[in-house]
Amino acid sequence: MIAKRLIDQNINLPKVSAPVANYLPVTQSGNIVYISGQLPFWEGEKKFLGKVGHTITVEQAQEAARLCGLNIIAQLDYHLKGNLDKVVRCLKIGGFVNAISDFADHPTVLNGASNLMVEIFGEKGKHARFAMGAASLPFNVAVEVEAMFEVLP
Amino acid sequence: MIAKRLIDQNINLPKVSAPVANYLPVTQSGNIVYISGQLPFWEGEKKFLGKVGHTITVEQAQEAARLCGLNIIAQLDYHLKGNLDKVVRCLKIGGFVNAISDFADHPTVLNGASNLMVEIFGEKGKHARFAMGAASLPFNVAVEVEAMFEVLP
Amino acid sequence: MIAKRLIDQNINLPKVSAPVANYLPVTQSGNIVYISGQLPFWEGEKKFLGKVGHTITVEQAQEAARLCGLNIIAQLDYHLKGNLDKVVRCLKIGGFVNAISDFADHPTVLNGASNLMVEIFGEKGKHARFAMGAASLPFNVAVEVEAMFEVLP
Repeated sequence: MIAKRLIDQNINLPKVSAPVANYLPVTQSGNIVYISGQLPFWEGEKKFLGKVGHTITVEQAQEAARLCGLNIIAQLDYHLKGNLDKVVRCLKIGGFVNAISDFADHPTVLNGASNLMVEIFGEKGKHARFAMGAASLPFNVAVEVEAMFEVLP
Repeated sequence: MIAKRLIDQNINLPKVSAPVANYLPVTQSGNIVYISGQLPFWEGEKKFLGKVGHTITVEQAQEAARLCGLNIIAQLDYHLKGNLDKVVRCLKIGGFVNAISDFADHPTVLNGASNLMVEIFGEKGKHARFAMGAASLPFNVAVEVEAMFEVLP
Repeated sequence: MIAKRLIDQNINLPKVSAPVANYLPVTQSGNIVYISGQLPFWEGEKKFLGKVGHTITVEQAQEAARLCGLNIIAQLDYHLKGNLDKVVRCLKIGGFVNAISDFADHPTVLNGASNLMVEIFGEKGKHARFAMGAASLPFNVAVEVEAMFEVLP
């Protein structure tokens, strides 16, 4: 049971809220769920602002990616009415790293989100992904991560 | 009826043409439609060239995002043989903003495309999305937007 | 038969290996296959490092995109146990070009990958796509390409 695993591993999910604009945090078609790009915020408080390779270290950026991942899971949990056991697999994550132009270690940064998926879902958490370097990101956050999941009907 | 709503709201779609290369503006698998990244062109005429935060303002970039959105809808309309009533929902849009490195207002820019989806499709137009900052974009356009829709068979 | 077409056209696929991290090169849900962002490596040897428009020309970047495409096909071939005839169509590719901030010719670069899909799969290889400019990419590669395919069950 995923809810128990979160408690056992001391993983706390943030409370989430819907965007105040004409889009949604989550959409679903059939058994595929799409999660909007999540930012490294904790319940509205902005964390990890800055440029990776300049004011943000790789270690901090990895934490930022993990926090994006926590928001992804929180949005998914809300969408599934608290039943994360309906997750069949994490299909894909897309990672944007707000980095200087010669930054090269995007994979390490994104492992912050990838590792979280496997901590929570085990083998079902293993996903396809891309990791790339953005020139800028919303609110000057260091990392943004989007995701897709397959879920039970 | 969506065609009537476009007229009532005075929303004109551009005429679209297929890319002159080995790719397509639209592909479909089952009931999911994928729209290639659309640029802020009006029937071949390039609009909104430049860097957001430098030669392009946030307001202009929002208009650019709306124009990308109009091209998305025009491609979708052509794919659906003029029957936009087959749209079940807009699932996701992906927004690339060609901005300076400390630009932070990508969400406002992308609202140009998001608002258009809701003007045209109402609640069905609400989608998941990501908004990120590109270092450069094709033809130096200010904004590029890709999209996915669920449609009736 | 795709395997014969590869031989006839003298297209060699690299041997591929799985990432040494908590993600996968390929995931599948139903008949849709997601391929992780592929880099211009040949069996582990890094090729085409640098910034397009500075140390990498458009022609070199196009070769880099083709090499990303070869890795995509190699991963897909491995996933399909050597039976590329199960490919129904290439649905979408996403292309990230590590370019200087006034670079504008991303479509030409991505044609390296798009042309490869059509050389291998013919009309089934035609896909939706986006092409955008990254500020940086993993290992300083010039190009990264992700992809989605529809396959037979």
